[in-house]
Amino acid sequence: MLSNEKIREELANLVGSQNVLYNFESLQRYGRDETENLFFEAVAVVLPHTTEDVSKIMKFCFSNSIVITPRGAGTGLSGGALPASGGIVISFEKMNSIIQIDEANLQVTTEPGVITEVLQNAVKEKGLFYPPDPSSRGSCFIGGNVSANSGGPKAVKYGVVKDYVLNLEVVLPNGDIIITGANVLKNSTGYNLTQLMVGSEGTLGLITKIVLKLIPLPKYDLLILVPFNDVEKAGAAVSAIFRAGFMPSALELVEINALKIVSEYVGNNSIPVTDDIEAHLIIEVDGNNLESLYSEIESISQLLQDFDCGEIFFADNASQKEELWKLRRRTAEAVKINGYTIEEDTVVPRANLPQLIKGVKQLALENNFKVVCYGHAGDGNLHVRIKMDNNKNSLDNPEVIPVIRKLFTLVHSLGGTISGEHGIGLIQKSYMDIVFNKAAIEIMKGIKCAFDPHNILNPGKIF
Amino acid sequence: MLSNEKIREELANLVGSQNVLYNFESLQRYGRDETENLFFEAVAVVLPHTTEDVSKIMKFCFSNSIVITPRGAGTGLSGGALPASGGIVISFEKMNSIIQIDEANLQVTTEPGVITEVLQNAVKEKGLFYPPDPSSRGSCFIGGNVSANSGGPKAVKYGVVKDYVLNLEVVLPNGDIIITGANVLKNSTGYNLTQLMVGSEGTLGLITKIVLKLIPLPKYDLLILVPFNDVEKAGAAVSAIFRAGFMPSALELVEINALKIVSEYVGNNSIPVTDDIEAHLIIEVDGNNLESLYSEIESISQLLQDFDCGEIFFADNASQKEELWKLRRRTAEAVKINGYTIEEDTVVPRANLPQLIKGVKQLALENNFKVVCYGHAGDGNLHVRIKMDNNKNSLDNPEVIPVIRKLFTLVHSLGGTISGEHGIGLIQKSYMDIVFNKAAIEIMKGIKCAFDPHNILNPGKIF
Repeated sequence: MLSNEKIREELANLVGSQNVLYNFESLQRYGRDETENLFFEAVAVVLPHTTEDVSKIMKFCFSNSIVITPRGAGTGLSGGALPASGGIVISFEKMNSIIQIDEANLQVTTEPGVITEVLQNAVKEKGLFYPPDPSSRGSCFIGGNVSANSGGPKAVKYGVVKDYVLNLEVVLPNGDIIITGANVLKNSTGYNLTQLMVGSEGTLGLITKIVLKLIPLPKYDLLILVPFNDVEKAGAAVSAIFRAGFMPSALELVEINALKIVSEYVGNNSIPVTDDIEAHLIIEVDGNNLESLYSEIESISQLLQDFDCGEIFFADNASQKEELWKLRRRTAEAVKINGYTIEEDTVVPRANLPQLIKGVKQLALENNFKVVCYGHAGDGNLHVRIKMDNNKNSLDNPEVIPVIRKLFTLVHSLGGTISGEHGIGLIQKSYMDIVFNKAAIEIMKGIKCAFDPHNILNPGKIF
Repeated sequence: MLSNEKIREELANLVGSQNVLYNFESLQRYGRDETENLFFEAVAVVLPHTTEDVSKIMKFCFSNSIVITPRGAGTGLSGGALPASGGIVISFEKMNSIIQIDEANLQVTTEPGVITEVLQNAVKEKGLFYPPDPSSRGSCFIGGNVSANSGGPKAVKYGVVKDYVLNLEVVLPNGDIIITGANVLKNSTGYNLTQLMVGSEGTLGLITKIVLKLIPLPKYDLLILVPFNDVEKAGAAVSAIFRAGFMPSALELVEINALKIVSEYVGNNSIPVTDDIEAHLIIEVDGNNLESLYSEIESISQLLQDFDCGEIFFADNASQKEELWKLRRRTAEAVKINGYTIEEDTVVPRANLPQLIKGVKQLALENNFKVVCYGHAGDGNLHVRIKMDNNKNSLDNPEVIPVIRKLFTLVHSLGGTISGEHGIGLIQKSYMDIVFNKAAIEIMKGIKCAFDPHNILNPGKIF
């Protein structure tokens, strides 16, 4: 075992001392993420600039059994980027170039440290569209999105990150560099290492280049906000929309409590929050034919009358749309500051959403916690934010764990699972047995071992 | 080692003697598929009826190191279903029930032995759409499609099989039964075992239940056939269509030689094949707004003028569309009977299609073989059918292997890979080194070993 001093010294030799951080502020900063209130101290934070840097660092760590925690922008909500087992943090913030926008093939090749919104804007300038955009898109890294298989509001029509990743360059734990696939739209050549890497939360290899599929940017979108006096009816309306043949480009649900908190937080009082409203749906349609979009939003609005919706607000211009999306995007942040520190990322088959909402309310009543729900209702992906007296964290918390087990058991009984887009990381791993049997978990561990026999890469995450 | 007699007897004890076949005709039939002219003899063919049957068979084979070759309908083109290492064949033809069409959630749960077109028609009756449809859709099994990650003409807009598989029930080589995911649209819960199974060609586990995502059935489609006097210009037109923001629901290319052969084969003389034509594009658009589709097809037609296309044929009614699709679907069969026995499944980034076509022609000239090209041009997925004097097969053929190596080296140099939708199976495995380095192949072998430590499941396939 090398001493911390020796580790820092060797890393500085490999990538330069300016790229190895271990002062107090750095270790504080890179020891936290957006998950609850958790901190773990690493020995050092390393900032590689190239794939070769990453490979050198990996070889050194492999030879010396030094644990590595890879980190994007630290916006994760499951603790995947926390150095919970010590060792070093590799931050990809210096690998932040968009390498090529291939307009002829509608593809982009990027390094992992590019901010998602920066990437989206760069391809937008070429008339192209990269749809997956988590709420944190203004700060999160594309590499972290790939590692967590992130989603976001557009996923309901356009799919999640996995649906856009064509090919990856990956540094394996022993330092070897592989290309997982090819820059092609269809690929039946060997095991799908690309898809195995997506969502593997930095436990199998380090992603150093990403090739993403792009699509033509739709010309128009229309946005409505629909109040419901019964949150379960709002949930029921969601599956009715799809069953009627519509395919909205976003279909979000925000409970009234959450909306009140976020409206105050961002200083927006334009949306009336009367006492009879339980939840809102935010519905967007997009496409290239404006007339047909108007007709679609009209038909959806009519359909919603069957679910006793209130007066529909139509976002008339870009600034109204922006305001509405800002409310939705900043909900998690606002409710967290309000004391709802524990977020669960439940997902069920879309039609079971009313049962999930009802069950969550029941659980809250029985177990004496406050709860707000919001999320990507069109995907059946409901974020459940919990506030419990004196309990800021769920990790290793004997008061909170039984409550979350009940929640996830409910989710599983409704055909769902425990993470739709955040990942398992550190804080959900003890619930994996609810949704996978022993044989499935053993297979995952076998895969982990095939990639990372010394267990140096983000150990203690996922399982 | 058990004797063949003992193996047959024990299998009969497990699943009933009527479900264990080993007469001459059966071994002949299950020893072949649609790949070249190859035959391998199994010890027996077993027909499980349930997941439990499959588990029992697997446990028996695991304990006795008996090799298993899983088989769908035997329509594969890479030899994945051939019992090349002897042992037993497990055919899924008796596990052929559509278990549930979940209209509320737009999902279908099916057994693997359902014919793809049967499944498509069943969901179509409910107004729902399962897009992936290989040319063999009238006979192939959905389980085989999942194992090969099949595509088909609709993939260009709607994606391939992997984009529809939400969840799988899998029997592992030791007989354990696992569920790989959940019946949800978004899932970041552990490694993506679902996507790892898709395209794994029966080497990791046996798929016994499949949950597929469905989408609303588009109401209308329009179809045109466009002649080009220069096949490379046809290829160039393909990427221009997407770059202009259109998203056709099919974009196929058929070289004139192939069209002549298939027209004669199916007795259709409705399409003029004049001497100045080198290739046709078949272009389909679909959606719910007929007017906007007409406007789209009009714009596409105008764009195609820049590529010196000939007179565009507009398929005016359902029967004309059906005729056109029949020509396309039966092309492979027709050219095979015509002596083009070797088919390669090349795929490149779409804009590199003209270079691929040009390179293939050059290779044919230099190496003295005849070639026809056709395929899913919108995906950059070009099927290359080869006819060489006295060479019906590519497998272990010292005259053919160097030619195919040259072809795949070209494909790789254009950023492509060696199979877009057929899989690697038996006949492409010796070319894997062209597209993957040693470290990547070692990782795949490690995954194989984690699932199948005794190497009993479809050994000698993929690598």
